[in-house]
Amino acid sequence: MTQRELDAVVGAASALELFHAAALVHDDVIDSSDTRRGEPSAHRRFADRHADHRWAGDAAGFGTSAAILLGDLLLGWSDELFDDAIHELGDAQRARAARRLFNTMRTDVTAGQYLDVLEESAWVERDEQELLDAARRVVVFKSAKYSIESPLLIGAALGGGSEAQLEALSAFGLPLGIAFQLRDDLLGVFGDAAVTGKPSGDDLREGKRTVLVALTRSRVSSSVRRAFDELLGDPELNTEQVLMLQGAMRDSGAVEEVEELIEREVRRANAALDEASLAPEAIAALRQLTARVTDRDA
Amino acid sequence: MTQRELDAVVGAASALELFHAAALVHDDVIDSSDTRRGEPSAHRRFADRHADHRWAGDAAGFGTSAAILLGDLLLGWSDELFDDAIHELGDAQRARAARRLFNTMRTDVTAGQYLDVLEESAWVERDEQELLDAARRVVVFKSAKYSIESPLLIGAALGGGSEAQLEALSAFGLPLGIAFQLRDDLLGVFGDAAVTGKPSGDDLREGKRTVLVALTRSRVSSSVRRAFDELLGDPELNTEQVLMLQGAMRDSGAVEEVEELIEREVRRANAALDEASLAPEAIAALRQLTARVTDRDA
Repeated sequence: MTQRELDAVVGAASALELFHAAALVHDDVIDSSDTRRGEPSAHRRFADRHADHRWAGDAAGFGTSAAILLGDLLLGWSDELFDDAIHELGDAQRARAARRLFNTMRTDVTAGQYLDVLEESAWVERDEQELLDAARRVVVFKSAKYSIESPLLIGAALGGGSEAQLEALSAFGLPLGIAFQLRDDLLGVFGDAAVTGKPSGDDLREGKRTVLVALTRSRVSSSVRRAFDELLGDPELNTEQVLMLQGAMRDSGAVEEVEELIEREVRRANAALDEASLAPEAIAALRQLTARVTDRDA
Repeated sequence: MTQRELDAVVGAASALELFHAAALVHDDVIDSSDTRRGEPSAHRRFADRHADHRWAGDAAGFGTSAAILLGDLLLGWSDELFDDAIHELGDAQRARAARRLFNTMRTDVTAGQYLDVLEESAWVERDEQELLDAARRVVVFKSAKYSIESPLLIGAALGGGSEAQLEALSAFGLPLGIAFQLRDDLLGVFGDAAVTGKPSGDDLREGKRTVLVALTRSRVSSSVRRAFDELLGDPELNTEQVLMLQGAMRDSGAVEEVEELIEREVRRANAALDEASLAPEAIAALRQLTARVTDRDA
């Protein structure tokens, strides 16, 4: 890799980090999450500042407003950084290709986020199959493309990857991204708060309509399903109720099915690497990524 | 102007419109405004949709979340459109210059918005002079640069304007932008709802700490000031209370002072045109803009 290419990749990766920071700041507002990575979330910090100073008006409202604007600022800066990075490259064609991928990624993840938020509310209108389809769509758009596939493609475009190489990276990245999110869904319900940095059972209090939830609902009796729906999404869930929901997920066999889905997607990702015309070092690095993404507890 | 330049300017102008739409969607969330241009605001529409479908959870929360994401989507699309537009031009140097101005504009207006939101709360800690300085800073960053100066500079950069021409457009645009916002502040308090599309007195219920407010407070007795502070920012203000606040602003002479400030800034803007080395058609168009921006009732 030339120095220019390296600078461009580091710049683009930094831009993705800033974009992600923006998404998290807005996400925490949307989910009313008070913590992020074990620390107070951005809107919480602004609200605390308001309260500490005894400013006029509503502290929570100020926190939300300031966090919306902080996210907007970070979105702009991410874009600025990305633009500078692809200019560093001095190759207009590669720069355009990377920019298009970046644009698509932003649209995909924002639409995916909306679908996620929508399903937290609109699930009441869906039948079992629609619920599962919707949950899968959220996984693909909100997470799989965004977290793994798009960053790989952007890097490849900056490095002048061939069309076949980009296709191989998609064939690897998309299933790995799905596996990543399915693991995340399990951690959101069963994860250890001390390791994940998020209170245990937070996804249950938010009422996220994950694949895990859709599979559980399709596997339990209608009376258990009613009790399940009643509890899921209640922000006041106590420990006992969290344990009850966790139990239903485990006992129904849904957890096991999700674990199997993860394995299947990982196999797909690995199989894509077997046939990929990528440098051996690249393939070795991607195999390491597979292990890190799917066997984790945070 | 060549066809390419024209396409680039139209594309960039469309990008600014989309950026503005994003800012308004987020702004209405921040200000809890239920209407925009006489129609329900975006978050209100999403909340209504939630209520109409009897979806699960909280309609208002869904409205806020969806509007945050809609704004994010529009921010991304605005950027995408701007990028395409400057590429149309086929002139890398002009494209870079326009992009830098666009980047600065985004940061300025977002920071200005934050200062505005901050002052709605933090004013309790400020003395009279600080309040006036803060209100002026908001006018410059949130509005003057954003609404007038930056769009002019971006257009000029796309057209290959000289440094002297860009300076002349700044010297014209910044004071005109200040006059524009001061007029907006007056309309926010005294405007006719049927014409502005915003409920009358809305700025008073939001508690916007405008130059008009700062000047009023510095001109009234401390007992009137206390009553004024008590009412301003109360979302439940009734008509009588709105009339009382309007009366204090008028009787104190603050309204007249703002009108004088507007005239002074317009004179400055016009004087900048007298010396500008711009085409006569451009100068004529800018003089028309001056009249449209400052003598308006919506």
